[in-house]
Order: sequence, then structure tokens, then C-alpha cells
Amino acid sequence: MDERKVLTSYVLRIRESLIRAGVRHVVVSPGSRSTPLAYAFADSDSVGVHLQTDERSAAFYGLGMAKASGEPIAVLCTSGTAASNYMPAITEAKYARVPLIVLTADRPHELREVGAPQAIDQPGMFGRMVKHSADFPVPEKRPDLLEYIGRHVQRAVSIATDAPAGPVHLNIPFREPLLIDFGTDDPGLSFRSVRRGMMIPEPGMVRWFTETTSAAKRGLIIAGELPADLDKDAFWKFALSLGWPVLADPLSGLRSGVSDEVEALCIDQYDAILKNERFKQEMAPDTVIRFGPQPVSKPLAQFLNGHRPHTYIVVDESPAFRDPYHLATDHFQCAPEMLMGIRAGNDPSDYAMLWSEANRIATEETRRAVSAGTDEGAMAGTLFADMPDGSDLFASSSMPIRDVDTFFMNTVRDIGIFANRGVNGIDGVVSTAFGVQASRKRPAYLLIGDLAMLHDMNGLISSRFDETDLTILIMNNDGGGIFSYLPQAGEGRYFENLFGTPTGLKFRSLAEMYGCQYDAVESADGLREALHQPKQTHVRIIEAFSDRQVNLGEHRKLWQAVGERLDAEWNR
Amino acid sequence: MDERKVLTSYVLRIRESLIRAGVRHVVVSPGSRSTPLAYAFADSDSVGVHLQTDERSAAFYGLGMAKASGEPIAVLCTSGTAASNYMPAITEAKYARVPLIVLTADRPHELREVGAPQAIDQPGMFGRMVKHSADFPVPEKRPDLLEYIGRHVQRAVSIATDAPAGPVHLNIPFREPLLIDFGTDDPGLSFRSVRRGMMIPEPGMVRWFTETTSAAKRGLIIAGELPADLDKDAFWKFALSLGWPVLADPLSGLRSGVSDEVEALCIDQYDAILKNERFKQEMAPDTVIRFGPQPVSKPLAQFLNGHRPHTYIVVDESPAFRDPYHLATDHFQCAPEMLMGIRAGNDPSDYAMLWSEANRIATEETRRAVSAGTDEGAMAGTLFADMPDGSDLFASSSMPIRDVDTFFMNTVRDIGIFANRGVNGIDGVVSTAFGVQASRKRPAYLLIGDLAMLHDMNGLISSRFDETDLTILIMNNDGGGIFSYLPQAGEGRYFENLFGTPTGLKFRSLAEMYGCQYDAVESADGLREALHQPKQTHVRIIEAFSDRQVNLGEHRKLWQAVGERLDAEWNR
Repeated sequence: MDERKVLTSYVLRIRESLIRAGVRHVVVSPGSRSTPLAYAFADSDSVGVHLQTDERSAAFYGLGMAKASGEPIAVLCTSGTAASNYMPAITEAKYARVPLIVLTADRPHELREVGAPQAIDQPGMFGRMVKHSADFPVPEKRPDLLEYIGRHVQRAVSIATDAPAGPVHLNIPFREPLLIDFGTDDPGLSFRSVRRGMMIPEPGMVRWFTETTSAAKRGLIIAGELPADLDKDAFWKFALSLGWPVLADPLSGLRSGVSDEVEALCIDQYDAILKNERFKQEMAPDTVIRFGPQPVSKPLAQFLNGHRPHTYIVVDESPAFRDPYHLATDHFQCAPEMLMGIRAGNDPSDYAMLWSEANRIATEETRRAVSAGTDEGAMAGTLFADMPDGSDLFASSSMPIRDVDTFFMNTVRDIGIFANRGVNGIDGVVSTAFGVQASRKRPAYLLIGDLAMLHDMNGLISSRFDETDLTILIMNNDGGGIFSYLPQAGEGRYFENLFGTPTGLKFRSLAEMYGCQYDAVESADGLREALHQPKQTHVRIIEAFSDRQVNLGEHRKLWQAVGERLDAEWNR
Repeated sequence: MDERKVLTSYVLRIRESLIRAGVRHVVVSPGSRSTPLAYAFADSDSVGVHLQTDERSAAFYGLGMAKASGEPIAVLCTSGTAASNYMPAITEAKYARVPLIVLTADRPHELREVGAPQAIDQPGMFGRMVKHSADFPVPEKRPDLLEYIGRHVQRAVSIATDAPAGPVHLNIPFREPLLIDFGTDDPGLSFRSVRRGMMIPEPGMVRWFTETTSAAKRGLIIAGELPADLDKDAFWKFALSLGWPVLADPLSGLRSGVSDEVEALCIDQYDAILKNERFKQEMAPDTVIRFGPQPVSKPLAQFLNGHRPHTYIVVDESPAFRDPYHLATDHFQCAPEMLMGIRAGNDPSDYAMLWSEANRIATEETRRAVSAGTDEGAMAGTLFADMPDGSDLFASSSMPIRDVDTFFMNTVRDIGIFANRGVNGIDGVVSTAFGVQASRKRPAYLLIGDLAMLHDMNGLISSRFDETDLTILIMNNDGGGIFSYLPQAGEGRYFENLFGTPTGLKFRSLAEMYGCQYDAVESADGLREALHQPKQTHVRIIEAFSDRQVNLGEHRKLWQAVGERLDAEWNR
């Protein structure tokens, strides 16, 4: 059984090198060709194995784990279209900068492109969507080969976790037989570790930054999505010392754990505020510092675009900094937390106080809308108000993340907020939420529309294999709600068919299929009542029925109310 | 509104060029960026628009339509991961040689790779999985641009339909606003048509072929998957004139419409027969002609591999002929139907008569197994026997296609058989079946296992938008049945977890969710009874509960029975 020994050494080297590089979890989808690695992972105490039979969902699950933990997470599948199903999550991982380690088992060279079953052209198949791709040699009895694959696995994980993080692909061919010896060890691992440095601002940058920010009259900090493990304390010390208002995207994490000290600067209502023309015109910033990607808010984008601030600093570790509106005047390529070490020593600016007052007013109106309203926004706001300290929220793309932006208000509670905003897809949402929960191990809540829920119903399959704690709030408005907000909604003739896409589907039966606790609600009160019932199953589904036209009307009503209050304030 | 006119001319040129190139159907997934094309398609009487909100399923639906019709079928989606979800069906289309026209809307250049939402690096994103890829310019008021896109659309469809057929990708960027004028025409289409020639065998090939086949003593024809519109009459005239047995894969279509004249030569039981050692050893062929890809049967592959016939002709229009076992001695690059014009004028060979007799014996045993058995095979056989004349069968990969191979016996009925055998994935199966039905417009039956059904439950969404006629028979053995047949099944420790993957899920609730007629059965008799109930909903689900161990046992029992009968015959 020399072949078996060779195969065993080969997969153990891969496994041990992954572990040494910091991979502690792998999401496995069953298949034949990947057997040696699947067995090797199952046979180790150092790797958590998570199962998901749909590879598309599996990769999103891995993405969620990696996103929540910042750690590299591996996914493993067999050859063929199994690998193709990884493409959506790989795409999201690239743009969301998530270190996903994609392991695809492959047929050996003599079975490639000759019409053999389940054999596709896998080497490099993810193209520019991965940061790195390698096609491994078939197992052979050669010490240099083991040295190569061991080091190359570590190299690949390093590439994935290096800023900006992203997916990498290792294609691993196996010949039959596919069996390995269990309970054996890899004695030969000689490569010890990767020790990565930190990118700090060089002295000239710091000097210029200090001069520029102290000269600014109307400075603004914009915080897009930030890492879950951000040192918020350091961030707020930095912001307080500047005395600038912070427009905090929900994914910045800054709207949670908000202390009295920072509350005045933490602006969470800018999306509603910036729908007011007068405010928009008169509050032009002269200097902007942006951390993380551009926030989700469209009014904010229009505000910035309208003024094109004199100085717009994007802090981004990637040489390919994100700047969708071509506003950046300066790119600070360094680790954001390194810049946050700078202390200016200012008091809050007058400009900050105007923002703060507007935020207070908008908050009042938003609260009123939540307690009075009957639409999705009110229900979303009710959920957010009800979530316990030490829980997490995952928001789907499309309307949910926008409702989070509007209705998730500053809170002292510790609530993590996550979403797939790399590419804003409505695919893989359920799985990513499960992955986030699997990594954070706290009660998690998923806010999702009916179309996104349908798209990744298969995400639920993972709950058949792994324990979890997830409450899913489905906003069922029977179709694509967000399109109602777009200009093409005016085309009555084909609009409802092509964009509304009402499926008429409800989710009670789905809950039954998966044995999930289920409630149907139609109002914020009904939702509150349901949320106060004890959770009895790992996955709980609450379906909130709503109406796209009512939602549109209520959202506009709120924005109008905020606008009128701001106008009144301005004229006072 | 000059911009709107420019945009309208641009999308009309694309639409009209697609239509002129033979595209009659497009599968649309809702999204914002693709609005201009979606509206243009909806506004035309010459294109059927099919909706599916899950892009992965949408592309498989298009694949099914294209596979069943041989026509190019377009799929359209918005930018971002929507496009990534096309990858699995594109992969299958490449290897199954199906002309899928992939249209992805994109953001314009100034929004690419700058951190803009829903913008990914789309040009060329499907890499080597497509035959051709073009990144279109944004709409501009330039006559040469319209000429370019019109001709290039036709060129792309030509590439897709040229042998071997396959997917192509057109990436089409749009700037906002995304609205077009309705009811307008494209007066400027100047490119008229593509007229493709035929690849015929040159005279030297014909001469050599005639000499070689007339010198053969033990000639064998192997028919893999063949096009749905194959001229079967021509094929059988060719085979009869050679007098050689035809090993007919279920996907060859040759097991249907079997007349008395050809029945003796149409060998459908070779998979069971070739499990007999004696038969396998003594029936070495000297000359083989293979049409279509290598059949699904593993015993056949082993039989051919064991003998390595002196002459093995692969008839394949592609220069990259399929030959997974490296057996081919000669590649005939020409249209198969052109070779079928040759007439030899032989009587059936003695070798053919031995095959015929073995086939008769195996058929008896298989029939017995179907009428006596209690396992999945017996139920599958019951379904096949019960299907009406003028219906279609779609078989999932994994066990179902193997059960079709074993239990779908020669019949005079007109029954089309389809499967995704390009890469044999268990993904997209439901959607492909819907697509086949949408194209053929006959009653369709889908045979599928529980894991594959779970994988593409979303395929059902299309039934909310389009009429259909599909009966789904789910073989629920709670997990991955096929793995029980593999060597790795011996590893008791991790096997059931990693490969069995029992989800415990049943499909009654799913049927309820989609309003489908539902029956649960546990035996061939129960299935027969259910099938005789009138079909009341567009989609009907029959769930057959079975046991993986019983299936394994019954399959082995049948093969043993066939083997014993053949041994007895041989010793007579």
C-alpha cells in the first residue's frame, strides 16, 4: 500500500500547513474526488468540519465565518460543477476582502479535457476573481514535492490574508484509489510561520495629515464597513480629538456600544437628513476622511458628489483604493488603526454641533415612525430595538440593509451588524448569516426579503448538520421591493412582470420542512409579540407580510417629516 | 431625450440581431442594470421571455431549452454576483456542447474596480468555460458602433452553435438612465444571415472506413448521447447494413421508437451483461465505432479498457474529440449524420447474435426485478414502463441516470431521454428539466434523488411564472446514495457523516409551498397507483422513500441473476 502512504503524506501536509497558517475551519461538500482531504480534515481535532451539500451555499457559509472572524476559512469540494458553484461567494469574497481558501479536488491530468466525467478545466477557473491560484501536482513519492505543497499552502493563505484580503484557489488532483491511512501524523512540517508586518503612515503623511486636519473648518469622518474586531475605543479617541462628526454606516459597527461621551458625534441618521435640500446645500464639508468602503446611503453619495470636498482622504490598505464617485484627493495607504493613533486635541466643531442637532431631530422622527408605522421599516425598527445585548444582525442586500441604515439607531448594546456589501448580491445571504453565527456563537438575527430568502433557501441545509441559533425575519412583500424606488418603476406595461416578479410564495411550509418554529405577523406589534415568545428551535422563522406600495409611502412620509422638521429648525 | 434614443437603438440592434441569428427565447432574471434589454425583449413578439429569479437556476433552464431544441437560447442578468451564478450552467453547457448565449449587463467603465456597488470584473469572467467573450462598448451615437454590435452578436451566436456547440458571453455596459422607448423598430439591420456549411467525410476516409468495417469480424457500434433531432431512421439503416450490434446509451435516444426490425441489434442491457466475467472476456470486439460521448456505463468502460480494440473510431465534429480512456485509434472529424450515409450491405454478424441473445436474457431478468423488486430500481422501472407515448424523461446525475441505464428498456413508444452529462453535476437538475419541458411542450418526468432535489429546489420558482407539465419522482434515500457503491464506503468512522449526509428532509412541505399535487410512495405498486391518479397541477411531486442498503442489495442481486443466466447459457 505504498500508494496509500504517499497519498496520506500528501493530504496531511496540506492539512497541517493549513492549520499552521491559521485555518481552523473547513466547510466540506460531499463528493468522491475530494475524499482524501475530507477524511483528513475529519480525522483532525484542530479543524472544525462544517457540512453543506449545496456548494454555492457552502462557500457563502465559509465567507460568513471568515467575515465574522477575520480568519482564513477553507472550503472543500469535489471536481466538476461543484467547483463552479463556488463562483458567487468567491466574487463576493474578492470585493468584500474576505480570506476564503478555496480547495477544489480535481481529476489528474490524464482525465482532463478528454471527455471524462466530472472533469472540467479547473486550473485558474476563477480567473481574476481570486488573488492567487495554483494547480498542485498529483501525489508522488518525492520529498521536494511535499516541501513545495506545504510551503505553497502557507504562501496561499498568506496571500489571502494580506491586505486587502481575498479568496485564493488551490486545485488539487487525486488519482484513485482515494483512501488514506487514519490516525497518522505529519512529522515533516519544516516551515514554521509567516510573520506579517504592519503598514504604518510614514512621518511625512502624519505631518501633512495633522496640518490639513487642523486647518479644516468643516471636517467630516465617514465610516463605512469596518472589521468586526475594530478597536472602537481607539477610533472614538481619534474622532473626539478631532471633534468632527462621524457619519457611521451601520456596518461600521460604530452604532453599537455608543457611550454618552461619543453620542453627539455619532451620526446615524445622515441618510434621512441628507434628503433635505437646504441641509445638503449649506453643510458642505471642506475636509473628509473616509475609513472603509463608501457607505450604503445614496443621499450621502449625492451630497459628497454635489460638493466635491477640497480634501477627501481615503484610508485604505489596498493600492486599488475604493472611490466609486472619483472624489478622493488623497489616498492614505496604511492600516486604518495605525492612522487612528493620531490625536489632535480639538473641541467638537460648530459644524459637528449642527450635525448633532439634525441627528437628534431625525432620530425623534424615526422613533415616531417605528412606533406608529405599519410598514417594513417599522417592523425592522422593532426588531432592532428588541435585539438583546450580545447578539448579531445580518442584513440582506436590497431593502433590508437600507432599512438597517434608516432604522438601526445608536445603541449602548453590543450588537454586531453584518451584510454582504462587497457586491451587494441577494444570493447566499442565508448561508452567510449561518456562517457568521457559527463563528460568533451568539444569538443571530437575519433580516431578509422574500426573493433573497428564496434565492438561498438551501442555506438552511447546513442547520441539519451543525448547531446554530438564528432568527430569520422574512419581509415578504411578494417580489422585488427595491425596484419600486427606481425610475423604471414608471413603465407600467412590463414592470410588474419583469421587476415585481410576484411569486405568491409563502414560507410556512418551508419552516415545516426544516422543523423551524414559525410565526406570521403583519405589524410591528405582532412582530414584538412574536419576538417575546421563547425561541424553541435552532432556527426560527418569522414571516412579516407587507405591501410594497405601503412601504414606499411610509418611507417617503418619514423622509418628508424629517425634512420639514429640519426646515423649521433652519428657519428658527 | 437623445440619450434615450441612442440607448433604444443600441438594445434594439442587439435584440434584432439575436433574433436574426436564431435566438427565439431568453431567460430573464430581474435586476436593475439589465433593464434596457429586459424591456426590449418584453416588447417583442419574436422572443419568448421566461422568468427565473435565481440566476443559477435561470441559466440551467436556458440550458435545458437549448439542449432539447438544439437552438441557441439567451439568458440575461444584471451586474455583480448575478452573473457569477451563471457559472455552473455555463460549465455544463461547455462540456455538454449546448449553445447558451450569456448576456450580462454591466456597469460602465467608470464604475468598474473603483468600489462601486454591484460592479465586478465581468469582462472575460467565465474564462475558458465559454467559447467566446466580448465586452461591448457603452451605447454611443455612432453608426459604426451599431454595425459592430449587430454583426458581433451574430458572430457570437455563430460561434456558439458551431460544432462543437457551447456557451458564449456578451458583457453589455449601460449608463443610467436605463429607460428605452417602446414600440420602436430597428430599421438599420444590414447583416442578413450566417449560412453554415456541413463537414462531410472526405473520399479517402470513406474508402478506408468501408474497407476496415468490411474486414471486421466483431464490429461494435457504441452510441452515447445523441442530439434530440437525430434522424434515427438513417442511423438504423446504417447499423443494419453493417449488421453490428449497437450498444445504446439511454441518452442516445435509440431505445425509444424501437421497431421489430432493429430490436435484435439494439442492445440496452450491456451494463448488466458486462458485469459477467466470461462474457466480458470472450466477447472482445475488433472494431468499434463510437458516436456521441462515452456512455455512462462503467462496466462498458472496463470492457473496452480491458480489450483495447485494434480499431476504435470516434466520430466527433470537434477537433478535441472525447476519449476518456485513451482508446481511440482513429478520429473521424465530420458530422456524424454524414457518416451514417454509408451503406455496407452485411447481414447481422454472429457476434451480433450473441449480444442479442444475452440482451434477451438480461431483459427477462430486469423485467423480473422490476415486477418483484421493492427498491429504487424497481420503482424507476415502473415509472419508465408507465410513461405515455410522446413524453420526455429527465434523469438526474448520480444514481438516477444509472437506474435509467439499467431499467429503461427498449420500447416502441416515443420517449425522449435527457440528462446533464457534460459534467454530471447534481446541480441545476430541476431547472434543466423545466427548460426541456418548456422547449418540447410534452408531458415531462423528472427522476431525481433527494440531494439533487434539494440542490435545485429553486428550479420550481420558474413554475410560478411559466406554464409547465412536469411530474417529479424524488427517490428519497436520505442522502448520497451513490457513495455506497464506492470503495470509500468501507470507512465506517467518517463515511456516513461526510458522504451519507442524511438531512432527514422530506418534500411534502415543499410541494405544499409550491401548490403541487403530492404523493408519498414506498413501493413499485404504490408508485404505479399514484401515477394512475390524474395529474391536477402543473407540477406534480411523487416522493418515493427508499433505503440505501436495500437499493445496493437489490441492484447486486439483479446483476448476479443476469450473470448466472449468462453463465448457464454459455455452458449450454
